[in-house]
Amino acid sequence: MQTPTAAMLVIGDEILSGRTRDSNMHFLARALTDHGIRLAEARVVPDIHDRIKQAVQSLSAAYDHVFTSGGIGPTHDDITADAVADAMGAAIDVRADARAILQAHYDARGQELNAARLRMARIPDGAALIDNPVSAAPGFSLGNVHVMAGVPSIFEAMVASVLPRLTGGPPLLSQSLRVLWPEGEIAEALGRVAAAHPEVSIGSYPFTLNGAQGSNVVVRSQDGAAIDGVMAELSRLFPDPA
Amino acid sequence: MQTPTAAMLVIGDEILSGRTRDSNMHFLARALTDHGIRLAEARVVPDIHDRIKQAVQSLSAAYDHVFTSGGIGPTHDDITADAVADAMGAAIDVRADARAILQAHYDARGQELNAARLRMARIPDGAALIDNPVSAAPGFSLGNVHVMAGVPSIFEAMVASVLPRLTGGPPLLSQSLRVLWPEGEIAEALGRVAAAHPEVSIGSYPFTLNGAQGSNVVVRSQDGAAIDGVMAELSRLFPDPA
Repeated sequence: MQTPTAAMLVIGDEILSGRTRDSNMHFLARALTDHGIRLAEARVVPDIHDRIKQAVQSLSAAYDHVFTSGGIGPTHDDITADAVADAMGAAIDVRADARAILQAHYDARGQELNAARLRMARIPDGAALIDNPVSAAPGFSLGNVHVMAGVPSIFEAMVASVLPRLTGGPPLLSQSLRVLWPEGEIAEALGRVAAAHPEVSIGSYPFTLNGAQGSNVVVRSQDGAAIDGVMAELSRLFPDPA
Repeated sequence: MQTPTAAMLVIGDEILSGRTRDSNMHFLARALTDHGIRLAEARVVPDIHDRIKQAVQSLSAAYDHVFTSGGIGPTHDDITADAVADAMGAAIDVRADARAILQAHYDARGQELNAARLRMARIPDGAALIDNPVSAAPGFSLGNVHVMAGVPSIFEAMVASVLPRLTGGPPLLSQSLRVLWPEGEIAEALGRVAAAHPEVSIGSYPFTLNGAQGSNVVVRSQDGAAIDGVMAELSRLFPDPA
């Protein structure tokens, strides 16, 4: 089968201003790779309705799945749910199932489900809720768009809730070879290997260790045997310097 | 003056597969904010010529500046320079000034400027070189696109080389108020303050401390006095619980 593709959309002024360093993209990238879904693009946009809407429409049309993080809390700058509903042409209002989840959560803590918190029960028509075991307020899947919280602990829990629903392909496998030569010394031979083996994807990433330059060569494929074959060839080509 | 806008384009399969966690976006976001340039969007794309080309064209048309990271080394997967040249309609070949920089660098180390390393002297016609004090191989600015290395130490040095050339606006200032109430308790009052003060942008970011929920409220503007006024109002509204 074809490996499904995905995009991630990180939503939040605080990422673009540098106040907060995003960690959700890296978490999702690893989780999708393990699940056999290929993350093909990621974007970060500010808390502006039309920017969110346009990005959702563009990514939703281009990829099998879109995962968003951020902007689904109770404050005025949390506008993701409404922007996604608008992008997908769905109506949105407080929904009974989401409201019941929040009511139970706040009742149990003796807190009030006030108007601000009730905004977190705004769920588009036709969306399926995504469970939030951390703080109750749910995410949702609308069409191929999966809307999740920005707080990393909640985002990660929501990814764990939603991924089992999605059909992945065979996971993308990889092996690395640590070559104790600078990239410039191995590049020509490595390029020939890459050209001869289109069944794998080969990346090279430089490193410096105790002042010496080396290259981490990564071979990726869904076919483990193909990786093994190329790794054997690379190990012969680039033995450790004696 | 209008604050210039910018986009960042992170290029690399290793980011999207989750092998590597990008740190350049966060570094650039902070550096641009300090320099008075507003980072308005960021994207991550894989090492695919047409994906890089399309992203560069789209972002270059939409923003005052585009900053790229990754894909300018000597190996077969380093295709950024050619893709950017293609996107901007510029010819590209080994250029004498870049070649001279590399020749001096490798001569000084007794290393060979071989064909692979010479690829790093491929610079589009009309581009200005960006100094690389770490490992010599230059980046370049072509039109409003600034092409830099992906290795964080080199990326950061190149940002330091290129930013002084670019005219920034007044820097975006911000102040934070740590409110010891959950977002759901302050959201309505905070929303009224935000609506009454369009001259500032107000964001709210939840935190948990010793099991208690709080909110970091961030007020942003280029006008320091406007921030001071709103911060005073917020401090009156949300005093620490006695």
